[in-house]
Amino acid sequence: MIRYVGSREMADLLRREGPEAILRRLIASLRADFLRWPEFDLAPRLASHSAGGVIELMPIADAAFYSFKFVNGHPGNTRLGKQTVVAFGVLADVATGYPLLICEMSVLTALRTAATSALAACHLARPESRSMALIGTGAQAEFQALAFRLALGIDEIRLFDLDPAAMAKARTHLEGHGLKIVCAKSVDEAVAGADIVTTATADKTRATILTPDLVEPGQHLNAIGGDCPGKTELHPDIVARARTIVEYEPQSRIEGESQQMSPDYPVTELWRVLRGDAPGRVGRDEITLFDSVGFALEDLSALRILREIAGPGPGLDLIPEPDNPKDLFGLVFSKGHAFERAA
Amino acid sequence: MIRYVGSREMADLLRREGPEAILRRLIASLRADFLRWPEFDLAPRLASHSAGGVIELMPIADAAFYSFKFVNGHPGNTRLGKQTVVAFGVLADVATGYPLLICEMSVLTALRTAATSALAACHLARPESRSMALIGTGAQAEFQALAFRLALGIDEIRLFDLDPAAMAKARTHLEGHGLKIVCAKSVDEAVAGADIVTTATADKTRATILTPDLVEPGQHLNAIGGDCPGKTELHPDIVARARTIVEYEPQSRIEGESQQMSPDYPVTELWRVLRGDAPGRVGRDEITLFDSVGFALEDLSALRILREIAGPGPGLDLIPEPDNPKDLFGLVFSKGHAFERAA
Repeated sequence: MIRYVGSREMADLLRREGPEAILRRLIASLRADFLRWPEFDLAPRLASHSAGGVIELMPIADAAFYSFKFVNGHPGNTRLGKQTVVAFGVLADVATGYPLLICEMSVLTALRTAATSALAACHLARPESRSMALIGTGAQAEFQALAFRLALGIDEIRLFDLDPAAMAKARTHLEGHGLKIVCAKSVDEAVAGADIVTTATADKTRATILTPDLVEPGQHLNAIGGDCPGKTELHPDIVARARTIVEYEPQSRIEGESQQMSPDYPVTELWRVLRGDAPGRVGRDEITLFDSVGFALEDLSALRILREIAGPGPGLDLIPEPDNPKDLFGLVFSKGHAFERAA
Repeated sequence: MIRYVGSREMADLLRREGPEAILRRLIASLRADFLRWPEFDLAPRLASHSAGGVIELMPIADAAFYSFKFVNGHPGNTRLGKQTVVAFGVLADVATGYPLLICEMSVLTALRTAATSALAACHLARPESRSMALIGTGAQAEFQALAFRLALGIDEIRLFDLDPAAMAKARTHLEGHGLKIVCAKSVDEAVAGADIVTTATADKTRATILTPDLVEPGQHLNAIGGDCPGKTELHPDIVARARTIVEYEPQSRIEGESQQMSPDYPVTELWRVLRGDAPGRVGRDEITLFDSVGFALEDLSALRILREIAGPGPGLDLIPEPDNPKDLFGLVFSKGHAFERAA
């Protein structure tokens, strides 16, 4: 049996652990995994685009585990009462190719995305950073705020969203947790004087959430909303001015803010910064950009942690168990049975 | 809820329908799908190779459906009492990106592989073909025999396998179904005078199941065992002599017998033959080769049929259903709950 964690059990498990305990564990695990980057079999995710959105598969493997995530992105889904992004993941055993775990991954994806953002910001934001503007307060917002509080000590969050209800939702969830919450009236107001600016908007277009005049020297930009071809959030002049860190260059040049730049625009992979092979922030006034698109390594890390948290439990009969593994036919079509009927 | 068909329900459904009814339906559906080939969003499968085998994802989409299959290939698994190949598939809705169905696919894969082989052979084997050599009598063998009986009227099957138990298993399953079954003592004996030669061996090596001296003018070769880099079954001189039909050229040049040939070796995609844009067999003495590696289109076809056969039934809670789709955080971490505990 393959261990199955559906959305109900997943919610129970995450609630039992608590978001900060999971974020803490994720940040540590992500750091360890990024540090052993050369051990992974890497590939850009495989995307299938349609008019309404995108469906992606994100596989990765090391010597022990293989994982992939199925994830969509359909901005119009909210109008149907459905989610923009749903996801499920599979962890498999490299030695036999057998799947070990299948689980719902929407919330886990938001957690690992936030943990990755916070991990990168530890090396890219100014050490004394205390305030973060959060532009786009949809499904990702609270996770980002909590991760940055945990990893960097951010204590002021300035929210802005075109949808007042989404902004109110984020405020409600974040209130009472030692964070000063400001609902800004504009992007300008949210960004002015903030140490970190996180953009987490969902439109599948070349949006310009930030214009060059808004960005201040020394700010760290954490751009997580632009994550597929034709979907960006920053004006290209901002990207041109920033030192840009990405997860996995071949994927980020296709999907990230970097897609707006020429192929020789320099980007640095995060693992090199974590290993000290490339510098993090250089100087107080530098503008740094984590051009995050989400990478399969983060899912593998999250799935391994989930497997530990979940332990043994309900499973699926997703693999047949024949007495004789060479006898697939006999497994289903035993003699004198369906076979005769069909003839 | 996503419809779930595990290995037990799958076996029940396939048994209820019977292998020939499903093969008939698959052949018709595959023909229709290959004929509308330009409507599909195609990509070579994404393979992750390790010392013991390979794990692959095989995605495809048309305007209505997206599907992918997870499938491994680990030849050493049989020594552990496990299967060489296990597989599961997912069918999703392109409009919303939501998964609709997840199901076990080992037997369904064998059925669709056999249906594709038979469909190709209808256009490539000599019309009067009556005998088929079946080299490698593992998990695929009986499906191939039945599909060729159904689609081409093959009535004589010559089995050969290095493993006598595997050969006996295939004979037992195939006996009593209007097929003359011969257990050959060698590849030579099985192939001599056969109209069609199917190779379905599993070693992950450059094997030479067939040598040029064995192949006779007019034979149709149905090579299904070679399906990843470094895994082939035919001597390259056989491929050089044959007119070669493939499923999807970019994938077959990497994975099929064609990987042994130079990039300018001519191959023809099956859909062109089915549409009459390229010829099938030309002349009685021509050697034709269906260099089959298995393509995602075949899985999509099979998954659509399975969805019809299965109808409504047990499902999985693989997608959370929040009251407010922008409120992923609130779905799991309600206030005054785990949140405080973790703080």
